Amino acid sequence: MTQAFPADSVGLVTPQALTFSEPLTLACGRTLNNYQLMVETYGELNASKSNAVLICHALSGDHHAAGYHSADDRKPGWWNGYIGPGKAIDTNKFFVVSLNNLGGCSGSTGPSSINPDTGTPWGADFPKLRVRDWVHSQARLADALGIGQWAAVVGGSLGGMQAMRWALEYPDRVRHCVVIASAMKLSAQNIAFNETARQAIMSDPHFHAGDYLSHNTYPKSGLSVARMIGHITYLSDHVMGEKFGRELRSGSFEQGLDDLVEFQVESYLRYQGDTFSERFDANTYILMTRALDYFDLAREYDDAPSVAFRRASCDFFVASFSTDWRFPVERSREIVDALISAQKNVSYAEVDSPYGHDAFLLPNDHYRESFSRYMAGITTE
Amino acid sequence: MTQAFPADSVGLVTPQALTFSEPLTLACGRTLNNYQLMVETYGELNASKSNAVLICHALSGDHHAAGYHSADDRKPGWWNGYIGPGKAIDTNKFFVVSLNNLGGCSGSTGPSSINPDTGTPWGADFPKLRVRDWVHSQARLADALGIGQWAAVVGGSLGGMQAMRWALEYPDRVRHCVVIASAMKLSAQNIAFNETARQAIMSDPHFHAGDYLSHNTYPKSGLSVARMIGHITYLSDHVMGEKFGRELRSGSFEQGLDDLVEFQVESYLRYQGDTFSERFDANTYILMTRALDYFDLAREYDDAPSVAFRRASCDFFVASFSTDWRFPVERSREIVDALISAQKNVSYAEVDSPYGHDAFLLPNDHYRESFSRYMAGITTE
Repeated sequence: MTQAFPADSVGLVTPQALTFSEPLTLACGRTLNNYQLMVETYGELNASKSNAVLICHALSGDHHAAGYHSADDRKPGWWNGYIGPGKAIDTNKFFVVSLNNLGGCSGSTGPSSINPDTGTPWGADFPKLRVRDWVHSQARLADALGIGQWAAVVGGSLGGMQAMRWALEYPDRVRHCVVIASAMKLSAQNIAFNETARQAIMSDPHFHAGDYLSHNTYPKSGLSVARMIGHITYLSDHVMGEKFGRELRSGSFEQGLDDLVEFQVESYLRYQGDTFSERFDANTYILMTRALDYFDLAREYDDAPSVAFRRASCDFFVASFSTDWRFPVERSREIVDALISAQKNVSYAEVDSPYGHDAFLLPNDHYRESFSRYMAGITTE
Repeated sequence: MTQAFPADSVGLVTPQALTFSEPLTLACGRTLNNYQLMVETYGELNASKSNAVLICHALSGDHHAAGYHSADDRKPGWWNGYIGPGKAIDTNKFFVVSLNNLGGCSGSTGPSSINPDTGTPWGADFPKLRVRDWVHSQARLADALGIGQWAAVVGGSLGGMQAMRWALEYPDRVRHCVVIASAMKLSAQNIAFNETARQAIMSDPHFHAGDYLSHNTYPKSGLSVARMIGHITYLSDHVMGEKFGRELRSGSFEQGLDDLVEFQVESYLRYQGDTFSERFDANTYILMTRALDYFDLAREYDDAPSVAFRRASCDFFVASFSTDWRFPVERSREIVDALISAQKNVSYAEVDSPYGHDAFLLPNDHYRESFSRYMAGITTE
């Protein structure tokens, strides 16, 4: 069957659920006594266990970063363009670990899981998580897989925040940190968009203060609007113009016709909202956007990023994209400046792309070449 | 009583409702047999009736552009900074007319008015309006006031679209056209934001397909989210950062505290959404955003703006603001380029301001001086 898959793909992959029973104390002070993480791996762990790469996902991502789940799977994992044999994260060289984060809705323990203490879904009572909680749970995952040190921790957007936090929390366990289209903290405008998305969800009467599962319902329309807001911010004004312009899907501007005119971009965006709201959990969306908002790399380092990064002992690769207005190039330049002040080795690629924040998922020669070159330079003995 | 008001204000003003009973055929092909417009005027019409200025409002504006409605009114009209004795639109010189547009919710006939044919509120059945319909109804208003020709038609944002349409629909009736922070048509991203706002309203279960008044209810939370979306796009990333940064309103980031952290910007934005949703009509919001989306100055002129502007016989003043990302400076430059191609006289001010789209309502020396100078140059015999 594998010949059905492209030769540069990791082919058929099977997620596995790993259960952890050592209690995990969270930044909020609460403890998860046991939890499950859904994980995929690609490539082989070498004998010295020195070739492992951790992939950290962004807001709406999951463990399925590369390959296919079945022979007739139409779409590969979300970062298939950059993970596979011969690709930037070369699975001929690296053992790649990808997980669905705690609090997620793709098989890892989260708000829609059953709270063992009550026998009902956690819902709104699921603990508030911060990026550092994910990093700690990922360290447990590394322990379980026998990985003492990651060759690299890699992430885009919210995933890049996890990669940076790894470099500070476990300096001895990361040799390379790859931070793509990310930031050391969100701007007020970013928080404002996230809060508007949360309000769309929370004001949906089917939300029931987060306990919609107990009410056998679901805040579908609120989550759909939330995704529409997010989706606009992932794309550049330019690419929306190129892709849709002012093309009509239905209706006409002809005078005397009492038609409802519908633009292509409206229909596209509603479709994005609808399909997302069918696959994603509303409480997880709230939890993930809050983790994004709360993240502030240098908060406990006197708000001095260069002081924070002095804790790190790894090398860094940073990339940003010219039309990304959600995580603009200035945010990446701030990371690079702080790393230089902290006397860390850093390679920086500022990539021209018309595709906005989404560019980190899309094909691009400059991005692919600089990312591949950096990963190729990582030694794994 | 008037000494209670600032000397450079128009003081106490009283709106008046004007009724029109000559049927108005709309671009959609339907006809309004009679309608009401809520109007305010400031200054005195001169004997030759050559000093009248029309103010066209933006998305959420109304007729109350300047002055105060009562002695204890805390807030003046929405453009009080630029309309008054000695101000850019100098009421010692001009007779200023400001109205609530058809379809509005501040006293002019709109979706919340009673449809005389049914005896119930129009609701969703109110005709879809385009910018040209407003211009046509404003021409009737000019007729009623005995104004054959406006010294100037002035507007910002959606108001600027009306000013441009005036110059093409009634070239003999406009001597000067003032277009501030506007565009000849919206981009796909603009439409996307508007559609997301509409979806927030329309998916509110209290919307009842637009007939909420007949159901004695109101889509308050949907309209609130819609306004939050809009509000973010009126402000620049920079000014949100300056105003709110990452300041907390409540909660703490201290570890071990299971607090809900709330940023100032979240609370501000929710407040904006809440207060707006108490004063504005949801159907009007949908109608106005659709008029914005549908506007395309040159559509019936072979999509050639310079061909369109050749119809105009007035002079133009155009202004834009450096951090306005809703109506960026490029949109105003396109207007200026088209006017030059059409061999029209145009003055253009590209104003440095940190305040985004909202800048057109706010104090700014360069803006005030160039706007004032242009208006001062208008002859009124």
